[in-house]
Amino acid sequence: MRVLVTGAAGFVGRAVVARLRDSAQVIGVDAVSAPGVDVHGDLADSATLSRCFAQPVDAVLHLATWPGGAAEREPNRAWHVNMDAARLLVDKATAQGHRPRFVFSSSIAVYGDPLPERIDDATPLAPTLLYGAHKAMMEIWLDTQTRRGAINALSLRLPGVVARPRASTALRSAFLSDLFHALAADEPITLPVSPGATTALQSVECIAQNLVHALQGDATGAMNLPAQVVRVGELVNAVARAAGTHASRVTWEPDPLIEAQFGRVPPLHASRAIAAGFRADEGLEALVEAALAGLTFSR
Amino acid sequence: MRVLVTGAAGFVGRAVVARLRDSAQVIGVDAVSAPGVDVHGDLADSATLSRCFAQPVDAVLHLATWPGGAAEREPNRAWHVNMDAARLLVDKATAQGHRPRFVFSSSIAVYGDPLPERIDDATPLAPTLLYGAHKAMMEIWLDTQTRRGAINALSLRLPGVVARPRASTALRSAFLSDLFHALAADEPITLPVSPGATTALQSVECIAQNLVHALQGDATGAMNLPAQVVRVGELVNAVARAAGTHASRVTWEPDPLIEAQFGRVPPLHASRAIAAGFRADEGLEALVEAALAGLTFSR
Repeated sequence: MRVLVTGAAGFVGRAVVARLRDSAQVIGVDAVSAPGVDVHGDLADSATLSRCFAQPVDAVLHLATWPGGAAEREPNRAWHVNMDAARLLVDKATAQGHRPRFVFSSSIAVYGDPLPERIDDATPLAPTLLYGAHKAMMEIWLDTQTRRGAINALSLRLPGVVARPRASTALRSAFLSDLFHALAADEPITLPVSPGATTALQSVECIAQNLVHALQGDATGAMNLPAQVVRVGELVNAVARAAGTHASRVTWEPDPLIEAQFGRVPPLHASRAIAAGFRADEGLEALVEAALAGLTFSR
Repeated sequence: MRVLVTGAAGFVGRAVVARLRDSAQVIGVDAVSAPGVDVHGDLADSATLSRCFAQPVDAVLHLATWPGGAAEREPNRAWHVNMDAARLLVDKATAQGHRPRFVFSSSIAVYGDPLPERIDDATPLAPTLLYGAHKAMMEIWLDTQTRRGAINALSLRLPGVVARPRASTALRSAFLSDLFHALAADEPITLPVSPGATTALQSVECIAQNLVHALQGDATGAMNLPAQVVRVGELVNAVARAAGTHASRVTWEPDPLIEAQFGRVPPLHASRAIAAGFRADEGLEALVEAALAGLTFSR
């Protein structure tokens, strides 16, 4: 099986590619040159796309994105990456003629900011961020192309992923990952939310497993991935305990905007994904352990 | 009030502009040069857009589109008009800074082909045509921009509009309008559906009234316009009667694909639009009378 992975140099991309290489031939593509990137260039450029599809591709994992805060700062660039490049990628995959598998990393940002009081697979989409709107629109496009028999697409709405590399400044939710880095290094950290803030997380290892499962499966449509929904205070205690340090390394300085956007995640129901064999980390301890184990990888 | 109307040279555009000129200053823009078109050019071109917004605009009526069958034949052109141009138009309207009114002509094509067995404002969107997907995606974009306070947008899902000019070959539903032209001229016509086919219609005069109402109102989101849902056999009888000819002028040669796409419109519930003051023609006779009265205009 030959799999094209976009955003292969990204944090999630690297984790998935490492896991995929055992069982598939991977073509990694990214806007930046890096180890594991076979094709380097702008996905919206036809020469780049031609190199990606130089040989037939059985499946596409589309992770490349221009995320939340960065999209707000550069809306035209975000449209180019999130809409134009995605469409051209779908066209190129379709042109192969064999209805390839297409897995798209969407986001719970499709539900808006603030998030509604309950999230399940039937919750109406009401994005507020440009990024969330792009994801919702591309879900519609992929569903349409799947109904037309052009591709066989699944959109997975990813929760927060930990622990990303430090200084992921494009993401306003970076503090959730920085927490792991700081406590693992026994350093102080200031969090822009309250201990009662709630968030939905998967470890990067768990996300990678789910994405590989998505590439191999045949579920279509758009669905939420299951996640651990935890209070940040509990998360801090669990990380401090596992890292052998003290929760007192954390200073709480809630920012109302950040708290509203990233600290009020409601219970997140993912019955369709669970029925299709997707899974969350098995409890908070397992999530923290997996995230800490992955820190070397994410540095 | 200064209103920018895109697609001003089109059939619906001309009817709305004629009605609007009484009460507003209209700037008509279209890709083709025609009477009533003040700015002529590609809406996705920044020079064209700058001419449209040379003076502040209070409201935008966005009718320009690359419709159903034409979009299937030229998907890149359709994306350019339906997605890129619409986005740039929204950006330009937003940049004025006063949250202008923005009315978008969407379509019941967002519900897919074949249509579901019931359509109301809560029916899930499941487009099949590229055109329907573009409309659904742009509805999400406009809702997002409205939630962000950038514009004040309403998407109206239009039913079929009669009677369009003859030879509107870009539309696969052209036979519904050609029927009026043929019977008014006492000419024979072959219809590609059965007498039992059902369709949802408004006269162009009624559509124009609704669009002016939309520009003046403050309803937001996306909603179905109410419509007369009629069997084509009944429609033929009513048109023949009003035109003083015989229904026997019609030959029925149902094409299964056309019948499936345009002849199985279910009851169409539009309670949100009705509550917001939108209306259908007052019965089949009124619809036929208005459509026949408009034929001179549509030639």
